[in-house]
Amino acid sequence: MPFEITNELLEQVRFLIQQKNDTALLEILGEEHHADIAELLDDFNLEEATYIIKLLDSELTSDILMEIDEDIREKILKTLSVKEIAEEIEELETDDAADIIAELPEERQERVISEIEDEEHVKDIVELLKYDENSAGGLMAKELVKVYENWNVLKCVREMRAQAENVTRVHSIYVVDENEKLKGRLSLKDLLVTSTKTPISEIYIPKVDSVNVHDKAEDVALIMQKYDLEAIPVVDDETRLQGRITIDDIVDVIKEEAEKDYQMAAGLTEDIEADDSIWDHSRARLPWLFLGLIGGIGAAAIMGNFEDMISKHAILFFFTPLIAAMAGNVGVQSSAIIVQGLANNDLKGSISNRLMKEFSLAILNGFILSILLFVFTWLWHGNMLTASAISISLFAVIIMAGIIGTFIPLFLDKRGIDPAIATGPFITTSNDIFGILIYFWIAQLILF
Amino acid sequence: MPFEITNELLEQVRFLIQQKNDTALLEILGEEHHADIAELLDDFNLEEATYIIKLLDSELTSDILMEIDEDIREKILKTLSVKEIAEEIEELETDDAADIIAELPEERQERVISEIEDEEHVKDIVELLKYDENSAGGLMAKELVKVYENWNVLKCVREMRAQAENVTRVHSIYVVDENEKLKGRLSLKDLLVTSTKTPISEIYIPKVDSVNVHDKAEDVALIMQKYDLEAIPVVDDETRLQGRITIDDIVDVIKEEAEKDYQMAAGLTEDIEADDSIWDHSRARLPWLFLGLIGGIGAAAIMGNFEDMISKHAILFFFTPLIAAMAGNVGVQSSAIIVQGLANNDLKGSISNRLMKEFSLAILNGFILSILLFVFTWLWHGNMLTASAISISLFAVIIMAGIIGTFIPLFLDKRGIDPAIATGPFITTSNDIFGILIYFWIAQLILF
Repeated sequence: MPFEITNELLEQVRFLIQQKNDTALLEILGEEHHADIAELLDDFNLEEATYIIKLLDSELTSDILMEIDEDIREKILKTLSVKEIAEEIEELETDDAADIIAELPEERQERVISEIEDEEHVKDIVELLKYDENSAGGLMAKELVKVYENWNVLKCVREMRAQAENVTRVHSIYVVDENEKLKGRLSLKDLLVTSTKTPISEIYIPKVDSVNVHDKAEDVALIMQKYDLEAIPVVDDETRLQGRITIDDIVDVIKEEAEKDYQMAAGLTEDIEADDSIWDHSRARLPWLFLGLIGGIGAAAIMGNFEDMISKHAILFFFTPLIAAMAGNVGVQSSAIIVQGLANNDLKGSISNRLMKEFSLAILNGFILSILLFVFTWLWHGNMLTASAISISLFAVIIMAGIIGTFIPLFLDKRGIDPAIATGPFITTSNDIFGILIYFWIAQLILF
Repeated sequence: MPFEITNELLEQVRFLIQQKNDTALLEILGEEHHADIAELLDDFNLEEATYIIKLLDSELTSDILMEIDEDIREKILKTLSVKEIAEEIEELETDDAADIIAELPEERQERVISEIEDEEHVKDIVELLKYDENSAGGLMAKELVKVYENWNVLKCVREMRAQAENVTRVHSIYVVDENEKLKGRLSLKDLLVTSTKTPISEIYIPKVDSVNVHDKAEDVALIMQKYDLEAIPVVDDETRLQGRITIDDIVDVIKEEAEKDYQMAAGLTEDIEADDSIWDHSRARLPWLFLGLIGGIGAAAIMGNFEDMISKHAILFFFTPLIAAMAGNVGVQSSAIIVQGLANNDLKGSISNRLMKEFSLAILNGFILSILLFVFTWLWHGNMLTASAISISLFAVIIMAGIIGTFIPLFLDKRGIDPAIATGPFITTSNDIFGILIYFWIAQLILF
């Protein structure tokens, strides 16, 4: 039966916290999955959440802390003593432990580390803290099962039993030589189906994918997806085994990347969730809206320069929103295709080929849409010249928007800037302005 | 050393295909990972790709076929005989086998199935074909390691060795009772560290997450992410064990969902990649552009009704692109937050609370932006009344856009329609029209 957060449960737990009825609380929550309790805590205020964290066993609460929202975690950690945090960290695997410590204010970091009793754990955590959080080193855990190539299966199984105690999930057994250099891997399945006297050197698979500690998290994600891996070993520049990355961490990377791109395309500058505060939302949304405002003022200024047209051809002004909207839509479509292609690393061919293709596509789509617009405006207004001016402009604007939408993300990517920034309001706003400018130029050429 | 696709390699393989130098081709490709060869084949024409598929061993080519682009796979399968397809399918796990068969034209499906020799495999595939491809049943594989609760560890290990031969990766060993009902699970690690005489009933973990065959793929993905699972058993309505889903398939589901939402937000109606043909791109992009065209014509028609304003207050017309753009941007921001919250299942509270929050946020952002616009237009044009009309309209339009952007995805979701459809051009276009309408109404109220 799956755990479900109901209003009754919330009320009940809240009541028990007020009553300080620890026995009942432990009975209700003590056996639940940490992810479920984390979800429950999201609905509580800080005081209630902290009460639960202090009550439950640190084996459980350390996992709960990893699971809850970063903002709430930060607040809870502030209320915990250095010693209490150290106890939580003792229970965590090295990668999670390093993540938590990295979130603490600098002066607390050292005090927490000095309270951790397990020296091996401290050494591993300090090592992991060196790496950038978006690198393979920043994602990896030190916990893994490692055997030496000169062992046999029996020794291997014995040693593994000891090592496996510290490792939540054993995916692969990594085989190293006496210098700790990664040589290959063994699967648990292979061990199960091999006689105990076989030397490891005879049965290990020498082909093993690995990543370097300095590789980018996104690249690790692409490799693990491509080869359907559930764990990948991480090595240093001398191919010495340093740690391993598991697929659950990569799933988070994939989700975060996708959400970031989506949010940028939607004009949100910061990582934001529906339940964040109004201030956070305002801060995340205002920058792009402000850009849109500037763009709109620019468009107004351009139109102001063509004010003399208004007396003769007011109809031109009625179609500016259409031109601006089409420029924006075409630009967003083109840039989204490029951003997605870059993210999946499956864009082939040169920039000029890519632009040529977008150019042909814009001619095709632009032609169809312009004919439709021409027919409509001609029927509506009866003036073939005006209808031509408007629809020829639309054609030109669609081509321009497609090319700008394709070029900007490719250009940003070449410069090492995240191309996702080019989607959404940025492309829409710049295309609005260029679109309107082209529109009035062409109209002026045709009509005057 | 990672496999890298260079132009030299492409040329070399292409040359060897022309020469029909099978020995050299097998030497180059025979030992490579199927995902690498699939990537290579993406760059070849159909004839070359088919040549490679027919040359290599079906153990390798079956995996290659699963990995390459669906369009290319379809074309290659057309060139293969029913018997050749059956050979590929014999090599695949049941979930992949069923996926391939489902892609074949109906009359070929039966002929291929009748050519498969392994009867157990056929039975499993036919069973999987019953399920919707976006359900747990459609994702699961029949291959798994299953033991009965009345066995002991020794018997379990023996039986497992036989079963494990058919299973690429053993994540968990599922424990069932004599009626095949799922009772719990065992980890390989537990088996490694337990004495051989222990009865399974004493060591298995009775708590095991499972999903129903009819559960939606997205829900399975949310559960596996929440609990960091690498595999999950699938049961029927009587809790009988039917199959298992592994995380690599879920990673694909997560990616596809994210890409679909992103593409919808960007106004692309079909699943499209940068390297698809111009016709595919045109088909994917035209529907939304056509909608934008209709919207633009609607906006023009609205402005036509206010034509008498143009002689007195031409400046109003200069600001329509600004109003339309702001309405679009605010709408996209609001809807993106809701779509993402719905996808992650972390929207809390009622629709009216959500609308209230968006309303407050719109007042805050709208106030800041309207003040800025007021100051600018006043300084530019010197007429306080016009400046008021424009900035009060912006304020009203931002509030309207925020509410529409929040309401529409929530409404669609309640109706069982994918809310992602509400982002992008749909919201932009409808907000453009409403925005312009509100703008001219308010301007008329204030100025006449």
